[in-house]
Amino acid sequence: MENQIETNPSDFTGKPIHCKAAIGRNPGEALVIEEIEVAPPQAWEVRIKILCTSLCHSDITYWKMARPIGTFPTIFGHEAIGVVESVGEHVDEVEKGDIVVPVFLANCGDCRDCKSEKSNVCSKIPFGIDPGMPKDGSSRFRDSNGEVINHFLGVSSFSEYTVVDITHLAKVIHPIPVDKACLLSCGISTGLGAATKIAKVEKGSTVAIFGLGAVGLAVAVGARMNGASKIIGVDLNSEKAEIAKKFGITDFVNPKDCGAPIKEVIAKLTDGGADYCFECIGLAPVMQDAFASCREGWGKTVIIGVEMHGAPIRVDSFEILKGKSISGSLFGGIKAKSDIPRLAKMYLDKELELDEFITHEMSFKDINKAFDLLIQGKSLRSIMWMDK
Amino acid sequence: MENQIETNPSDFTGKPIHCKAAIGRNPGEALVIEEIEVAPPQAWEVRIKILCTSLCHSDITYWKMARPIGTFPTIFGHEAIGVVESVGEHVDEVEKGDIVVPVFLANCGDCRDCKSEKSNVCSKIPFGIDPGMPKDGSSRFRDSNGEVINHFLGVSSFSEYTVVDITHLAKVIHPIPVDKACLLSCGISTGLGAATKIAKVEKGSTVAIFGLGAVGLAVAVGARMNGASKIIGVDLNSEKAEIAKKFGITDFVNPKDCGAPIKEVIAKLTDGGADYCFECIGLAPVMQDAFASCREGWGKTVIIGVEMHGAPIRVDSFEILKGKSISGSLFGGIKAKSDIPRLAKMYLDKELELDEFITHEMSFKDINKAFDLLIQGKSLRSIMWMDK
Ligand SMILES: NC(=O)c1ccc[n+]([C@@H]2O[C@H](COP(=O)([O-])OP(=O)(O)OC[C@H]3O[C@@H](n4cnc5c(N)ncnc54)[C@H](O)[C@@H]3O)[C@@H](O)[C@H]2O)c1
Ligand SMILES: NC(=O)c1ccc[n+]([C@@H]2O[C@H](COP(=O)([O-])OP(=O)(O)OC[C@H]3O[C@@H](n4cnc5c(N)ncnc54)[C@H](O)[C@@H]3O)[C@@H](O)[C@H]2O)c1
Ligand SMILES: [Zn+2]
Ligand SMILES: [Zn+2]
Ligand SMILES: [Zn+2]
Ligand SMILES: [Zn+2]
Repeated sequence: MENQIETNPSDFTGKPIHCKAAIGRNPGEALVIEEIEVAPPQAWEVRIKILCTSLCHSDITYWKMARPIGTFPTIFGHEAIGVVESVGEHVDEVEKGDIVVPVFLANCGDCRDCKSEKSNVCSKIPFGIDPGMPKDGSSRFRDSNGEVINHFLGVSSFSEYTVVDITHLAKVIHPIPVDKACLLSCGISTGLGAATKIAKVEKGSTVAIFGLGAVGLAVAVGARMNGASKIIGVDLNSEKAEIAKKFGITDFVNPKDCGAPIKEVIAKLTDGGADYCFECIGLAPVMQDAFASCREGWGKTVIIGVEMHGAPIRVDSFEILKGKSISGSLFGGIKAKSDIPRLAKMYLDKELELDEFITHEMSFKDINKAFDLLIQGKSLRSIMWMDK
Repeated sequence: MENQIETNPSDFTGKPIHCKAAIGRNPGEALVIEEIEVAPPQAWEVRIKILCTSLCHSDITYWKMARPIGTFPTIFGHEAIGVVESVGEHVDEVEKGDIVVPVFLANCGDCRDCKSEKSNVCSKIPFGIDPGMPKDGSSRFRDSNGEVINHFLGVSSFSEYTVVDITHLAKVIHPIPVDKACLLSCGISTGLGAATKIAKVEKGSTVAIFGLGAVGLAVAVGARMNGASKIIGVDLNSEKAEIAKKFGITDFVNPKDCGAPIKEVIAKLTDGGADYCFECIGLAPVMQDAFASCREGWGKTVIIGVEMHGAPIRVDSFEILKGKSISGSLFGGIKAKSDIPRLAKMYLDKELELDEFITHEMSFKDINKAFDLLIQGKSLRSIMWMDK
């Protein structure tokens, strides 16, 4: 099987490309589709023609956030798939026409972290909300007035073309449909990895997941894969109860109407507290609820949500003495270059369900609709097609 | 080799014993040696003639603490060794004359936690600062006016005789000197276990230990045993620098005079942050320093200190996303009944050094001197002999 994809975009090698992008001009204001100029890739960089992109809550979090200063104007977007249009000097890992998934977390393959089993946080190209390209800090984007537009998380996929560092992409070597591969670019990989690589959920264990967006439901898929016996989903939006079942949620609780503090409800459902609690929302008080809901002795709280207000977590150290622990991860401990192909293969082998995460599809130009749907809790993932 | 110990105390089976105990009457005030009455052990209980006891900082923490209400008057003490004087109904694990180490953390052997590899926090007899015996909540101690005196941590070893629940002791089956076995009753086992069972320090890794009391130095012994390549000791008391070397500390840092924030000093010594940081003091701000001093990607902070003021730990969840984790334990993950004999055997096999932890020996009646020495940072462990 072959992807039915145009893998031979017009050749602009060495020249700027003029194309459309959705620009975030001000925090929380609708994105504006504008014409931009995308400079050619420099050394160790790759220019990509985006095929489709989807919306992850982290885009919303940073789009809403007034700080950090220097974020705006920005091209958001970090879940995507595309075709290599051209490559800069020293790039031999991919070539023009290759299908690639850009990723927000670098994977140089060379540093102590990339080489270790214990980390996926590349220490050569550190994670950051930087406005420029990782290696020289400058931007490849300008608007029609020649004003610099910032990059976002090393990806900036809300654009027909983008430039990413070679460490920020994974080559797609399996014939997986592009919209499914797009999902592996952030949220779904993150949830799956958090359950299987970070928590290492065991057969028969109990799991509570706070927040049933695509990330939380991917945790459920990972927990089910690992044989969890009970997977409790916690969400303020009761409309999630039904769809959550498809992903393995066995019990749904809405903290608003469960009649007792959530930790007590979970303690009751799990005979003393869940073995694993995952926070997939991004609110410190919920992270604390998750911690309170895991059992003494060995309960593990795994933080995945990006705290929306920068608030710290406060926990009683005595609870930690009693055996509870807190860990977390960026991208679920996933290493882009090795794990994304592995997950793609699992999808093809029918070991991993991805289709149900796509609740909406639309044209890229309707991107603000995708924002509305995610904010209102009506979508899991919206795939936005660049060419439709 | 046999212990040169009187293992046949006079027989008071079924009768109260009148003996001396050091009573804490008010928070922070010198203990008073008084005559008390120790009731016979009830079902599942053991009355023990204490041979020697030592002082752990947790005694000081709770002795200083005005709350929890109902603590005073109390018989403190929870590091000790003794001889079984008599046993209550249903006790067949030990008999009169057996040498036993009482421990503050129960080990029923029967509950989900005791049966699991992942926990040592017995869920049948939960840990607590309770004033009475675990099973019925009442006290076995009265003073000469007939007033009830409270138990402490299920042990109360600052008394010639005490009564403990059968789950709160380990039988000493190896011919280890009693003062060395006494150390295994809390602090040393805790530090060793934290390094080897909780953190599972690996060969070649870097370790930072905050607080170089007996607990912190036992962490160092455990880390050295596991092959750590660098073991940094952090203490406000520079007099600890010299003695710390004997326990494996390779680098000593006093935060008062190291000229930079401690996390920077440790980052420099470890090329980016320690793999493992241990807090062995009991101060939330130091727990946060420990967290700040461990490396991104996989740095693990292990909490051992009992927070002196009940203050919460505050951490930035974003640091957790970047791969740092926090765990901790009571008693270093040690299970009294199986691990204390194992550690005693290691001592006899010269795989574990215990002698250097004993910096002072004195008569039990000089117990307030032991308090002064530990508070002033002049001792690691003082062994107080009941019969000397
Ligand atoms: N760590 C990482 O690498 C990583 C990667 C991707 C996403 N994230 C983060 O994961 C989180 C989830 O992302 P998503 O795309 O699934 O988001 P989403 O918006 O689709 O899902 C969030 C869910 O949380 C629910 N919710 C909100 N507030 C709640 C509350 N107080 N109690 C209970 N439920 C509540 C919402 O109803 C919604 O169902 C975000 O914080 C995102 O930034 C982190
Ligand atoms: N988790 C458990 O099961 C367990 C068991 C035993 C002891 N503990 C706790 O472990 C801790 C240590 O016990 P110990 O008996 O070794 O105590 P200790 O008093 O012998 O040692 C504490 C050390 O910390 C140093 N210190 C104090 N404040 C400091 C600061 N701000 N910065 C750097 N160093 C500082 C002191 O100089 C001293 O050397 C205590 O909190 C105790 O309650 C916990
Ligand atoms: Zn994302
Ligand atoms: Zn790297
Ligand atoms: Zn102790
Ligand atoms: Zn038990």
